[in-house]
Amino acid sequence: MGTGHTTLKINNAPPATIGSMNIVITGGAGFLGSKLCAELLKRGELSDTGGHQREIRRIRLFDVAAQTYTDPRVENLAGDITHPADVRRAIEDGTDSVFHLAAVVSGEAEQNFDLGMRVNVDGTRAVLEACRELPKAPKVIFTSSLAVFGGPLAQPVRDDQALSPQNSYGAQKAIGELLVNDMSRKGFVDGRVLRLPTISVRPGKPNKAASGFLSGIIREPLNGLDAICPVQPTVRAWLLSPRRAIENLILAHELPASKFGHTRTINVPGLTVSVGEMIEALRAVAGEAPAKRVTIAPDPFIENVVLGWPAAFEAEFGKALGMQADADYASVIRAYIDDELGGRLP
Amino acid sequence: MGTGHTTLKINNAPPATIGSMNIVITGGAGFLGSKLCAELLKRGELSDTGGHQREIRRIRLFDVAAQTYTDPRVENLAGDITHPADVRRAIEDGTDSVFHLAAVVSGEAEQNFDLGMRVNVDGTRAVLEACRELPKAPKVIFTSSLAVFGGPLAQPVRDDQALSPQNSYGAQKAIGELLVNDMSRKGFVDGRVLRLPTISVRPGKPNKAASGFLSGIIREPLNGLDAICPVQPTVRAWLLSPRRAIENLILAHELPASKFGHTRTINVPGLTVSVGEMIEALRAVAGEAPAKRVTIAPDPFIENVVLGWPAAFEAEFGKALGMQADADYASVIRAYIDDELGGRLP
Repeated sequence: MGTGHTTLKINNAPPATIGSMNIVITGGAGFLGSKLCAELLKRGELSDTGGHQREIRRIRLFDVAAQTYTDPRVENLAGDITHPADVRRAIEDGTDSVFHLAAVVSGEAEQNFDLGMRVNVDGTRAVLEACRELPKAPKVIFTSSLAVFGGPLAQPVRDDQALSPQNSYGAQKAIGELLVNDMSRKGFVDGRVLRLPTISVRPGKPNKAASGFLSGIIREPLNGLDAICPVQPTVRAWLLSPRRAIENLILAHELPASKFGHTRTINVPGLTVSVGEMIEALRAVAGEAPAKRVTIAPDPFIENVVLGWPAAFEAEFGKALGMQADADYASVIRAYIDDELGGRLP
Repeated sequence: MGTGHTTLKINNAPPATIGSMNIVITGGAGFLGSKLCAELLKRGELSDTGGHQREIRRIRLFDVAAQTYTDPRVENLAGDITHPADVRRAIEDGTDSVFHLAAVVSGEAEQNFDLGMRVNVDGTRAVLEACRELPKAPKVIFTSSLAVFGGPLAQPVRDDQALSPQNSYGAQKAIGELLVNDMSRKGFVDGRVLRLPTISVRPGKPNKAASGFLSGIIREPLNGLDAICPVQPTVRAWLLSPRRAIENLILAHELPASKFGHTRTINVPGLTVSVGEMIEALRAVAGEAPAKRVTIAPDPFIENVVLGWPAAFEAEFGKALGMQADADYASVIRAYIDDELGGRLP
């Protein structure tokens, strides 16, 4: 997946780094992994567990298919997250930090229960076990999802709301959260769990996530294509732009372990927007023509899944840690146009 | 473990049963499994998934060591819960209901992380997968624990309180809860999860549970032995007698699936008692001599673990389902004396 990011390192500061840093990104070929990699290369350094800034020496992208990245700091490694030997090979001695993003998405995990269990549960366990074997417990940044919540919920959702996933993806992510938390408590890893809002506008092609249309209804029209919106315009969602997602992932990495108490899990702040408001923002930013490409055609299956997800969170812990949501949805659309379309409207 | 229960079947009612019923109890050699088996034999029938009363034809006790039970309806089967082939052999075609009680207890799961993961997580998954292979989804009654809660908690704990285990046993039980819930939602099993209060007075020898003293300080003195209480008398606990635990397990089995909505997990009602009140109740029921056998000698490790567990719950869903706590702790002690000591005081 080519995202056109610069891989130039810009670092005019004096060399204040102590040693250097090796990073692994699982799911490194995915859109979030690619964007994270590009941003890390741009920054050039991260803080280690002792809080010292260290130069990034290597970013290893681990995924089912090896990527082609030309930056000399990037190493592409193909492997299967469900094979512990592959995972150990990826997270070898000398690894400082692991961003564990690899996952089977919601729609696919619901259709193929066993695949979801293997990738989302066994794969996460393999990553954590490989980390545990390292001489020094690495930081592990794990992406969870608002799909861990469902059923009757107070809105906005409190930080101490019970997990009650109503689909297998949510259940599997909730299990991953518990593993990261317990293995952090045991000192096997230094984990941080980010319950990300639905990412919108997600670039690239549609995936099998039930939430896919929350990007598609903006992305397709901006690329001159028609889009189907499978829910009523009044349906609300809890959204985060790719830019903010990456910023919050890196912020979570940089936080010292002392910032965490009884839990490593953070509801990441997001934006509550209705689908109707999203289309209005598209009209405001890009004009009438793209907005007219969206057809409302409710699909009871998708509507049911999406209505089961909470659309507003207190996210107090995340805010206290300094995490930020997008200012408004129009700015999310503008960022997509800048980052993915070179600033050009259709 | 001989518990001296009668295995006579008393059933003078006309034969209203349709077909018959095969039950598996994992951890069948444990004290709860043995007591459950005895009570089921006494009742003689259970309701099936259609709500019809059916005669119990076979209770298979599955545990690491085969038991010797003389009732012809009881089959003892030795096996390893972490070996899927053993579990499939136990839960073979024709199984109607599984009481999954097998577990590594809290203290042991904390000392041996890998053993806890294998038994409490992989074992539970093996049980659920074996059930999934059956032609008709069986009822699965799974025992969880208040150890799934920890950290800052509103007391009494709400039914929708977030899981935040502060030990590996709690994390592993929480994972089991998520698996039972998701596999029930998928229709692979018809699960019911009971978060049991700490069982007191537990008969037999001390086990490796950090909560063991909550039985020991009553049981040992009533058996003419000294007991150490490793926490201050002001420390409170959330308790349930073995009798009530068995009643609630069977009640959970008998409930129709329609009683459950977004969750299969039930906080079972219990009794909030301080350790000082427990010792006072011992004095009131059994006199000064047994009470004097208890020595308060706080152990910071155990006190820390126990103080991390909530001592009061709203348990609204459990109460609405008809589950009951003990009336008071004195009656719990009297029940122990009746059931385990043949009514004799030391």
